[in-house]
Amino acid sequence: MDSAQTAGIIIVGDEILTGMIQDTNTHFMTGELWSRGIVVRRVSVIPDIIDEIAREVRDFSLKYNFVFTSGGIGPTHDDVTIEGVSLAFGVRPVVSDMLKRMLEHKYKILTPAQLKMAEVPEGAELLDDGGMIFPLVKFRNVFIFPGIPELLRKKFHAIEGRFIGPKIFLRKIYFDESESILAPHLSEIVGLKNGVKVGSYPVVDNPEYKVMVTLESTDNEALDVSVQLLLGKVPGEKIVRVISSD
Amino acid sequence: MDSAQTAGIIIVGDEILTGMIQDTNTHFMTGELWSRGIVVRRVSVIPDIIDEIAREVRDFSLKYNFVFTSGGIGPTHDDVTIEGVSLAFGVRPVVSDMLKRMLEHKYKILTPAQLKMAEVPEGAELLDDGGMIFPLVKFRNVFIFPGIPELLRKKFHAIEGRFIGPKIFLRKIYFDESESILAPHLSEIVGLKNGVKVGSYPVVDNPEYKVMVTLESTDNEALDVSVQLLLGKVPGEKIVRVISSD
Repeated sequence: MDSAQTAGIIIVGDEILTGMIQDTNTHFMTGELWSRGIVVRRVSVIPDIIDEIAREVRDFSLKYNFVFTSGGIGPTHDDVTIEGVSLAFGVRPVVSDMLKRMLEHKYKILTPAQLKMAEVPEGAELLDDGGMIFPLVKFRNVFIFPGIPELLRKKFHAIEGRFIGPKIFLRKIYFDESESILAPHLSEIVGLKNGVKVGSYPVVDNPEYKVMVTLESTDNEALDVSVQLLLGKVPGEKIVRVISSD
Repeated sequence: MDSAQTAGIIIVGDEILTGMIQDTNTHFMTGELWSRGIVVRRVSVIPDIIDEIAREVRDFSLKYNFVFTSGGIGPTHDDVTIEGVSLAFGVRPVVSDMLKRMLEHKYKILTPAQLKMAEVPEGAELLDDGGMIFPLVKFRNVFIFPGIPELLRKKFHAIEGRFIGPKIFLRKIYFDESESILAPHLSEIVGLKNGVKVGSYPVVDNPEYKVMVTLESTDNEALDVSVQLLLGKVPGEKIVRVISSD
């Protein structure tokens, strides 16, 4: 999967760093991107501070094909993501005429706080794939999402057609066997070096299984070879279940 | 809160980056640390790759008072956090005699995979505050936690007495008013520059309230001044509820 397209996610928000709110946007976006063949390489959760947002966005924008930010867009003093992205690329935040007209349609005469919601980094694109109510702001390879999960999901689904990588096949195998007994067998299938990625996830206090092993590949045949090899190493009564993602 | 002690959290795990598993350790640790007066400045989710773990650990260790890693310790090929932390500080991973004896007590004769679980960065401390079953590995200011949430929580609670900062007071005010109307009032209380941190969190489709505003400070009197000022700006029927954390 080394040739796959990559992504980085930047979660902007003091509320996540203080534990006030459980971030669910990461789980949603990573799962959606993975299922579309895009490999998320890193997630950063950072505070509502312009310089930090700028530094992270600049770095991610250079390293990954796609960057997704979540949070920090809105009318209040702590909504500084647009300023952060602007600073990252050395442009100014400017009022978008199109967004301004859309907001005026809703609020009639805009207060300064409402007008702030029309700001974009100068030169940004506005995406309204699938008829979003309010367009998504994109600057270069950076997609600027709201932090509110319901809104983020709607907007993400509207533009997800833009992200298509090679299909990744997945098998999950649940074992009623300790991880340290399975470990050498896993090392052996990793040693095949056939492009199959192997993960091992133990659980505690689960009456049904002790470890979930995952095997992933864009090559379904190589995947089957690895799965069969692994299953052949473990006594049948220790294999609880095998699940295919496709 | 600029003088508060700081922390960074590093979540090691491909399973989070592929969306296979929802990370809950961040939410747990950020909340616990916040309630103990420790300010979490950043969370990174990174893959099971030694070099990336090393780079992140080195960087965090220099920037923050405390570093917490989660995941990547165990017997399998993808458990490389100990190697990553070792590389970060230019030491070798070595077998800890104490951990080896504890594992031998459980498994009798150790397989290579089981012996791997006794490895620590050379010179690491083993913390067994509160009588943990298996000690926590600490190297300099880096606390190395397992990724399994139940184990992480138990170990965290065992050592949490080590983390004590100034108490942070919190008020949550729920408004049945749009964020763009509240924004100028929030800017006004931010403008007091009295050390009170103000956050604003809108929700959608909630019949009870539209925005939760948070005010935080180590100075309870300053906090009360800001809360009263804000409440005085908004008509009473728009104020749903005020909640104190203490």
